[in-house]
This record gives sequence, structure tokens and C-alpha cells, in this order.
Amino acid sequence: MRTPICDEFGIEYPILAFTPSEHVAAAVSRAGGLGVLGCVRFNDTEELDRTLTWMDENTDGKPYGVDVVMPMKIPTEGTSTDLSAYIPEEHKKFVDETLLKLGVPPLQEGEGREGVLGWLHSMARSHVDIALQHRPVFIANALGSPPVDVIEQCHAGGLKVGALAGAPKHALSHVANGVDIIIAQGYEAGGHTGEIASMVLTPDIVDAVGPDVPVLGAGGIGSGRQVAASLALGAQGVWTGSIWLGTEEYRNLSANHSAWETAFTRATSADTVRTRVYTGKPARLLKTKWTEAWAEEGAPQPLPMPLQNLLVAEAHNRIVASNDPDVISMPVGQIVGRMNEVRPVADVMASLVSEFEEAVAALNKVNG
Amino acid sequence: MRTPICDEFGIEYPILAFTPSEHVAAAVSRAGGLGVLGCVRFNDTEELDRTLTWMDENTDGKPYGVDVVMPMKIPTEGTSTDLSAYIPEEHKKFVDETLLKLGVPPLQEGEGREGVLGWLHSMARSHVDIALQHRPVFIANALGSPPVDVIEQCHAGGLKVGALAGAPKHALSHVANGVDIIIAQGYEAGGHTGEIASMVLTPDIVDAVGPDVPVLGAGGIGSGRQVAASLALGAQGVWTGSIWLGTEEYRNLSANHSAWETAFTRATSADTVRTRVYTGKPARLLKTKWTEAWAEEGAPQPLPMPLQNLLVAEAHNRIVASNDPDVISMPVGQIVGRMNEVRPVADVMASLVSEFEEAVAALNKVNG
Repeated sequence: MRTPICDEFGIEYPILAFTPSEHVAAAVSRAGGLGVLGCVRFNDTEELDRTLTWMDENTDGKPYGVDVVMPMKIPTEGTSTDLSAYIPEEHKKFVDETLLKLGVPPLQEGEGREGVLGWLHSMARSHVDIALQHRPVFIANALGSPPVDVIEQCHAGGLKVGALAGAPKHALSHVANGVDIIIAQGYEAGGHTGEIASMVLTPDIVDAVGPDVPVLGAGGIGSGRQVAASLALGAQGVWTGSIWLGTEEYRNLSANHSAWETAFTRATSADTVRTRVYTGKPARLLKTKWTEAWAEEGAPQPLPMPLQNLLVAEAHNRIVASNDPDVISMPVGQIVGRMNEVRPVADVMASLVSEFEEAVAALNKVNG
Repeated sequence: MRTPICDEFGIEYPILAFTPSEHVAAAVSRAGGLGVLGCVRFNDTEELDRTLTWMDENTDGKPYGVDVVMPMKIPTEGTSTDLSAYIPEEHKKFVDETLLKLGVPPLQEGEGREGVLGWLHSMARSHVDIALQHRPVFIANALGSPPVDVIEQCHAGGLKVGALAGAPKHALSHVANGVDIIIAQGYEAGGHTGEIASMVLTPDIVDAVGPDVPVLGAGGIGSGRQVAASLALGAQGVWTGSIWLGTEEYRNLSANHSAWETAFTRATSADTVRTRVYTGKPARLLKTKWTEAWAEEGAPQPLPMPLQNLLVAEAHNRIVASNDPDVISMPVGQIVGRMNEVRPVADVMASLVSEFEEAVAALNKVNG
């Protein structure tokens, strides 16, 4: 399985893996793909610096990437304390009452962490600055084109820049801004996602940007058959995310991991929902009693980014601490239905490659 | 492009084409696929009988299929006059006011036709009875398993029975009821459709029903690349619909066709919406001022099937008569973005086949 971006990045397989875990990212890179570390969770830039140093030292010299969350439009800035003033009491009350109703206990002393600030423009810029002091080969932005000066800064540092797109017009705008690689993220993907499904979106974007711009297919990719489908649609590689949430290496990220393992192993492909409750922008999450509560009649409309994430920050901490699979708040794509056991990253990579080869062999048989 | 269902049906390519037009269905069958005539629009069983006689005579002896709409649960029965009593005044008022606001004129004397009764169970049974007097090789049900006695009736007549499924559990239930072929209809499809996208749904259903039950991929299939993707996902063939609404042969179905041609040639893949306004069950339509009016705050919730279709029957007639591309009410999938010119059916078929071959060749290059 080899396409031009393999040479571009110096990787064996055109399989990119977005993950908030440095353990997963490093394991993917070691296994021949490109691990891409999500930076949004790092409120503390020194922690990101230390983590990227760890990446530099634990990837056997193989390339890796980073992912930041930088809205094109400069959103509301400020500390979480300042921003809290914009959150209506009605919303705070709804969150408190919902957690009570769902039996999610308050935090014990010392539990929990501050709300994610990576959604803030200034914080995302710091993430880029830190990343450039390390050796990533690729930087992706989850919310479209980064500002042009950031793209130039990354190019000057020798990095390729990628941006997620949910529609061809966004992809064209990214290319005009100087983005090198488009990630065509379909409706079925976990996290922030649009309404056009991968089967339609991938070839639409491939044809819109033309043969000189590599496109990665994203959304619904958890097996080698899906890799083959995405490449048949014209993608030069795939951008995967959810499947790595089911790996052994991902266990390192959270002390309370058993609720998530219970939740994803029992979930079917019908058990996700696209909702604004996580960040304020539409994102696909596991469907649980928490997301269902927000969908009930009388529930308030989620707030815009970055307020919604600040609103639910403590709730997320309480939910994690409760370790209850019924209330988990987790971005995951529709392929969660096929995540039925916890496997090492290297095994998942090997399956993607062998299943891809089997799918191509089967297509050749059809083709006669 | 050859799979076991080609031998099963005696067709050249595993490409099934659902269409309300006998001219399209016959042309698909003549071109080596399997044209499947949608029966739901036939309130008059004698008209269906005449149309199937025409199919018998205009398919060069090639096989064809039919499609009925038969809900598993017996819904409200009755004539359209009886059923009208269940439609709230608020809904009638909303329809009248919306049409006025959108500038859709009242019908002239002699324009329009009665609301579709094919959604009624008794009518769908008559469609099956009529079909069995002709020579279709396949009968598909758009709303899942037909009743077991209908399946047995079709089997006794030598037909294979297919059923649409939007989730693996539905597919398993269809197989248990005796259905022979599962049509895995993804979120991106036009018409009645679920929430799981084809990229995830197709392999989920393929693996759920096992290797002895052929699965057709449906939703998002309008090019040979998408055929290749669907077959890479494990489908034995594809079920297509929207693309045939852009063919020359489809022009025979309506006197006022120019509004539709304007509408679909300008639409992008973002210009559809999944809504209950057409039949009462979620179906994907072209997004127009008509669908947008139903999504506005204060608009009533659509009624359940079959009431919603009766409610909007006259509105649909008025919309067709108005020949205005801004208000069209038409089921179509997300691939509408790629329907940019009117082509003969045989050309579309030839493209599907040659693009499939190119996609497989490209995958082989990736595979080394």
C-alpha cells in the first residue's frame, strides 16, 4: 500500500492516525503510519513541550505529526474565568440538574482538571510555536485553514500543513490559503464533522482540488476494506481516529478507562450522535444518557465555541471520575460498532494493511 | 465487473437501478444492468399492468425488477378521503400559507393527480399481484421485509426478494423473514434512509448476514469509483437511484421537467436534506425553499406515514405545475452534486463500468 504521500512523509503506509495520546501516536509511527498527536488538551504549553520531547525520543526516528484546533475566525479570547461570564445561568442549571439526575457524583478533592483552552486562538498559536521546536513533519488543523501567517511559519519550519474539510468549497479555500494536504472528513467521522458522507465527499474534494493536492479520506475508516474504499474514491491516504481509541496504548491517557472500554465494546454503529454539546460546533459523539439529555424537549441549545466546552468542562471531569459507561462524553465515529476488543496499535495497523490487500484481491476477482 | 448476482439474475453488470420511470428501467436492463421499476406511483393497478406489459416488450428479453413500498407494520388503511379526516387543520393551513408565500400558484382545471396511495398496504399488495403476472426476476421492498406470505408468493413465482436496510439488525430480521438480497441503504442516499453512512453500513451488513446473502451497496453511488468503493466494502453489487433522475429517458415521466433539470444541475452535494416532510418517514430530498419552510421555527412537525404524503399531495402537484426550480420537492441523494448534465442511460452505464475499471487499476498501482 504505497502512494506519493508515503515518499512525501517518509512513511511506509499512507495511514495517518489522529490521537490525543502520545503513546498511540508514537506506536502508529513506529508501525509504519504517521501518528498525529492532538494538542488541544494541553492547556500547559510546558506539558506539550515535554510530551513532544517524549515523541522525539520514542518514535525510533520515524516521522510524526501534530494536530491543533484553530478556528479561521478569531473567536472570543480570555481566561476561563472571564469567559464564564458569558454562560447563561439556565445552562449551568441544566448541567447541574442533568448530572444529578444521571447519578454523576461531584468531584472529590483533587479530581478533575481545568476546561480545555486549546480551542482558544492564542493557545493554538502557542501549540504551533512549541511544535516547531520539535520534529513533526505535518501539522493539521481540525477546523479548516490556519491563518496564512501560521501556514507560512510551518512551511518555513519544513512542515506540510493539512486542514480538515467537510465540503469541496472549504477544501478549495484551504488550498487558496496555502494548505498542502486536504483531509476530507465525512459525516460518519467522530468529532467535528459536516453533513456530507465520505462516499460522496471524498471524490468531490479529490476532483475539486485536482491531482496536485493530496487528499486523505476521513470518516468511517476502521478496516482495510474501508481504506481500499477510500483509495478507490481517489484519496491518497486515510485519516483515522476512532479505531485508536480502542487500543492498549490509549489506556495510558486516563486512569478511569474501564467505563470507556465497556461503552465502546457494546456500542453499535447506530450508537453515535452528531451534536453541538461537546464544543459548540457539530461533532459526533458516543450516544449516551448525557447526549440524550441534551436532545430532550426543554433542554437548552448548546452555546457557541468556546463557551460550550467551558460550560461542560466540570461535567466532563465528573463524568470521567464517575467511570460510568452510561454517561460517557466521547467523540467517536460510526465505526465504533466495529470496535469490539482492545488491541495493540501494531495489530490494528497490520490488520488495516492485510485487509486492504484482501479487498484489492477481491476487486480484481470481480474485475475478471 | 462480475459477481455471483450477475449469474443469479442473468445480467452483465451487478448494477441495479431503482427508478419510477419504465423508460429508464428498460434502458438500464438493455444496457446490461437490472432496471427496477418503482410501483408506488401507480394508484391505478391497470396502469401498472399496462406499464409492465410495456417493460416486457421493451427490454429485449433482458431481466428487470420491480420495487414496492410495503411497511412491515400494517398502517392506517382507507381511501384518501377517509384519511384526510386525520389531518389537523393546522397542517393544512401551514401548507396553504407556505405555497402562497413561495408563489406556487393553484392548479388550473385538469392539472394534477390524486395523492399517492402506494404507501397503503392493500395497494402495495395489488402491485405485487400485478407484477407476478409479468416477468420481473426481482422484487424489492423499500421499507424492509414484506409480510412473509408475500415473500412466499414471490418465491413461488420464481422471483428473488430484496429489502432495504439501514442498520445490521434490520438486515438480520429481513433474512430471518426469508428475504434473499439485502440492500444496505446508507445515510447519503435519496429517499427513505437511516443515519449510518454507506462506508460503515455496507461492511456492517455484509458481515452481519454472512457470505450466503448477497448485499447491494446503496447510497452515494453515482460513479464507477463509488461502485468500486462499495464492492471493496464487501457488496456484491450496487443499488443506484439518483443518477437515473439525470438521464434523457427520465424526461418521459413529467411534462414539466425543466425545473428539475435546472435544480439538479446547479445543486451541490451539500444541497440535500433528510426530512420527514415527503412521506412522514425520514427521506433525503433536494433542499429547496419548500423543505426549508418546514424546517423553520414554528412550522408543524410532519405527520406520520401515510398521512403526510396525503397532506402534501396537492402541494406536490402545484409545485410540479409551477415548474419552479426553487421549490421542487424531489427525493435525491448527496450525489446530486455530481449530476451536472443530462445523459442517455446507456452512457451513464458505460461510465460506471469504465470508471470502475480505472479505479481498480489505480488500487492495483497503490498495492504495488
